Amino acid sequence: MQVDVIASVAEARGEDMPGRTVIVIDVLRATSNMVTGLAHGARGIIPVETVQQAKSLYQPGDLLGGERFCKKLAGFDLGNSPFEYMTEEIRDRQILMTTTNGTRAIQKSLKAHTLIACSLLNGRACAEAAANLGRDVILLCSGTQDVFSLEDGLCAGMVADELHRLTSGRVELNDFGLAMLSCYRENRGALREALLECSNGKRLTKLGFAEDIEYCSRTDLYSVVPVVRDGMLIDGSESLLRK
Amino acid sequence: MQVDVIASVAEARGEDMPGRTVIVIDVLRATSNMVTGLAHGARGIIPVETVQQAKSLYQPGDLLGGERFCKKLAGFDLGNSPFEYMTEEIRDRQILMTTTNGTRAIQKSLKAHTLIACSLLNGRACAEAAANLGRDVILLCSGTQDVFSLEDGLCAGMVADELHRLTSGRVELNDFGLAMLSCYRENRGALREALLECSNGKRLTKLGFAEDIEYCSRTDLYSVVPVVRDGMLIDGSESLLRK
Repeated sequence: MQVDVIASVAEARGEDMPGRTVIVIDVLRATSNMVTGLAHGARGIIPVETVQQAKSLYQPGDLLGGERFCKKLAGFDLGNSPFEYMTEEIRDRQILMTTTNGTRAIQKSLKAHTLIACSLLNGRACAEAAANLGRDVILLCSGTQDVFSLEDGLCAGMVADELHRLTSGRVELNDFGLAMLSCYRENRGALREALLECSNGKRLTKLGFAEDIEYCSRTDLYSVVPVVRDGMLIDGSESLLRK
Repeated sequence: MQVDVIASVAEARGEDMPGRTVIVIDVLRATSNMVTGLAHGARGIIPVETVQQAKSLYQPGDLLGGERFCKKLAGFDLGNSPFEYMTEEIRDRQILMTTTNGTRAIQKSLKAHTLIACSLLNGRACAEAAANLGRDVILLCSGTQDVFSLEDGLCAGMVADELHRLTSGRVELNDFGLAMLSCYRENRGALREALLECSNGKRLTKLGFAEDIEYCSRTDLYSVVPVVRDGMLIDGSESLLRK
């Protein structure tokens, strides 16, 4: 199984996606929020690129969520903190979500055979789903404004590590994937510290979101596998994790 | 001291270079060859981008060195194997060198305050020179055809680790630098194996250059610091390592 890790949205190429399982990662905080929302009973999450799109697709009963420059958008129900995606309010609701990097990465990957949203919170479940699918994998680190973000690389390394284990080592990694696997193994005992030390961690801490970082650094809290079906992320764990 | 590690020549931006120490890395094999050549008495190495340029700058007594697609060029004296750069023939000679990635990276960095060529063979000496200069640092991984190469990332991580030690931790790394530092620390005891496992390592092994890889994976064999002066790489260790 070929597993390629891509450093940022800028380096993702649409033509590489067809036929593959593409796993999009935006640990701080888009995909962590998606995972949290689905784990807490949201019916589905529609990732959109612009605020305009979010508003035009809105139907009564939906929730609007997302951020620009780490801040909640005017008129939106939910911001970009994972704690907003675990309330009773979101149960059975459809959430229209727009963020700076994570939703862009998803939009760029829509030609994938299977498109999964992954974070540290559900890394093992995503790896199991990808191993079951048996197709070549792209792990797309969303990064920040087209620049690599450490937290996404650590998550990619974690998924690569799980895939390595699940396939008894039958994983061929590209060089960037080999680097992220090593990086994860070096930091696996101190992911919280690594996330607080990286660029986004420092920025979010200054903005008062240190608790978000601590939450997003937890591994395998959930077994949901957010997968895109007809443009909406739903929990695909029941079909994808079935052996 | 800000230390930014750049993943490949494609991501290097000329406008970031002025005022900084730029350390160019192409472990397999351009900068390993440059280091080896200067350590064995070559007077200087002129990195040029094209075969045409190399031939037009040639003067009697010079040597022509380099490769395209890992192969020695027709009419050239030296190929791209480090063992060709440690013979008696190169002593006191000027070498015109053109390679696919390493010389391109150097050309792109000519606006640096100080431009150093680094490999695992002289990583510590380069870190000491950069620490003495005291300026912000760019570690430019040459990569292969604009794609990240693991061996360059490991060397960047090694230099970052040395800079961390030499400055008692007063190093601010960008996220990619943090990742490479971790990657190096995870692999420091098995660099040879890591270099044989990565993409260029496998390719060169197939072409019969496994001994080159083993040689290039050795650390701190030399204390030369190849530095560009008037377009030529010379050994600057005497001035740069003086405390």
